[in-house]
Amino acid sequence: MESLLTEAQRDAFDVVLVTPRNPLNIGAAARAMANFGFRRLAVVEPFAPSWREARSAVGSADVLQNANECATLGEAVAGATLVVGTGTLTYRKPEQAVVALPDLASLVARELARGGRVAMVFGPEKHGLTREDLSYCHILVEIPTDAGQPSMNLGQAVAVCLYELAARVASAGSDAQSENRTLSLVPVATNAAVASSGRLDLLAGVVEEAMQTAGYSPRTMQAANRHDLRLLLRRLALSEHDTRRVLGLFRRILWRLRRCPDRNGESR
Amino acid sequence: MESLLTEAQRDAFDVVLVTPRNPLNIGAAARAMANFGFRRLAVVEPFAPSWREARSAVGSADVLQNANECATLGEAVAGATLVVGTGTLTYRKPEQAVVALPDLASLVARELARGGRVAMVFGPEKHGLTREDLSYCHILVEIPTDAGQPSMNLGQAVAVCLYELAARVASAGSDAQSENRTLSLVPVATNAAVASSGRLDLLAGVVEEAMQTAGYSPRTMQAANRHDLRLLLRRLALSEHDTRRVLGLFRRILWRLRRCPDRNGESR
Repeated sequence: MESLLTEAQRDAFDVVLVTPRNPLNIGAAARAMANFGFRRLAVVEPFAPSWREARSAVGSADVLQNANECATLGEAVAGATLVVGTGTLTYRKPEQAVVALPDLASLVARELARGGRVAMVFGPEKHGLTREDLSYCHILVEIPTDAGQPSMNLGQAVAVCLYELAARVASAGSDAQSENRTLSLVPVATNAAVASSGRLDLLAGVVEEAMQTAGYSPRTMQAANRHDLRLLLRRLALSEHDTRRVLGLFRRILWRLRRCPDRNGESR
Repeated sequence: MESLLTEAQRDAFDVVLVTPRNPLNIGAAARAMANFGFRRLAVVEPFAPSWREARSAVGSADVLQNANECATLGEAVAGATLVVGTGTLTYRKPEQAVVALPDLASLVARELARGGRVAMVFGPEKHGLTREDLSYCHILVEIPTDAGQPSMNLGQAVAVCLYELAARVASAGSDAQSENRTLSLVPVATNAAVASSGRLDLLAGVVEEAMQTAGYSPRTMQAANRHDLRLLLRRLALSEHDTRRVLGLFRRILWRLRRCPDRNGESR
């Protein structure tokens, strides 16, 4: 029988459900986690009655009792160095690299091997992850499905993804070095620890403030800029060291900008 | 994106549900089939109200409308040359070769490539396939799960198995020749068409009759003998040609036996 994830790998992997609606799906996701040995569940803004019902169901998994309830996706993935978004891409043009699920294990294995933390994010049943949610993701994973019925049930999608990782991360770890086809999709720093999602958010906040203070673009563009900036920072795969340097630079710039006379006469 | 099964492969693959109880699970199994492009569903002795409810559910898949309802598992898999049983083996000592799900695709690919038909059989939610059900299976497949919670939900188990096959049968087909590790588990005839499950049942019936007529074993052993015989015939992987010969032989033996005076004085 295949070996499943090691203890250390299990502790460095989070399953994140964003606003799940159906208590049966929440229960099914938790059961799949227990089946494949995953422990850490975070739920973002769960629909309160569904969440209560799922947790109080007979035989509800430990995973639900110990779940981390978060107000935002940013909070749920703050500690992760590789955030993997899931969902059907049929109706949406992806802004990140897309990996087919059968090719994901080698990426996850490598990230875990160098001490990173991985979060896999599942969207609500109706419409999946929003564009805003996806901007927190380093890569998107696609489950190969039939064009006639591409959209999967949430509990089944979680089961399929966790099966794939449980069955193949262990074996992928050993030959991660030689696997170049999928790894090249994600431009990750090879050795240094990658900055966590929370650190990148901190940096994005300072850069955004600098952009605004410098009058970089009109107010109406701010939401779009914030979105693009979040994607850019993840694409760069900054190490923690890089992040600290860039953060220092932008703090300095911001400090300077604030001391400048406002040349556009536009109040911040 | 990975390629899914070809049209010809889809038409040579049956998903079989034995006595499913929960309409939601039936619906989930059908949805997973649609997601991964499988079309042929057979249900054996479905619990009537559940079956009605599942079929009449809003958005119920075509797969359910076109399902083949069977009275016995033997009937459902009669056309198959490779019958794959599923389930947790924790509490049961398997009588057939067991293959881990990640190693199944190469076997299925080879069987389909030489014109065989494959059936994958899922048991009822509560207790899974019985020993009698399993005696129709050439091999058993095990989904690698955590020892703490080995038992999967039916709909999720179907999704995981079909995902694995849809994602990997196409690629496994091309290197099936070189793949020897798992293939050697199942002693199948290499070139000739393997006899279908229905043909083996016909042969088993004639052999059993000969055994009884010859007074081979006491009446109390007949059920056990029938079970062992069914397993044996599948283990031998008889070609259709072999099957015809053995059938001819046993018919001849039977004809002879019937003309002999009853030496034990025991009536048949």
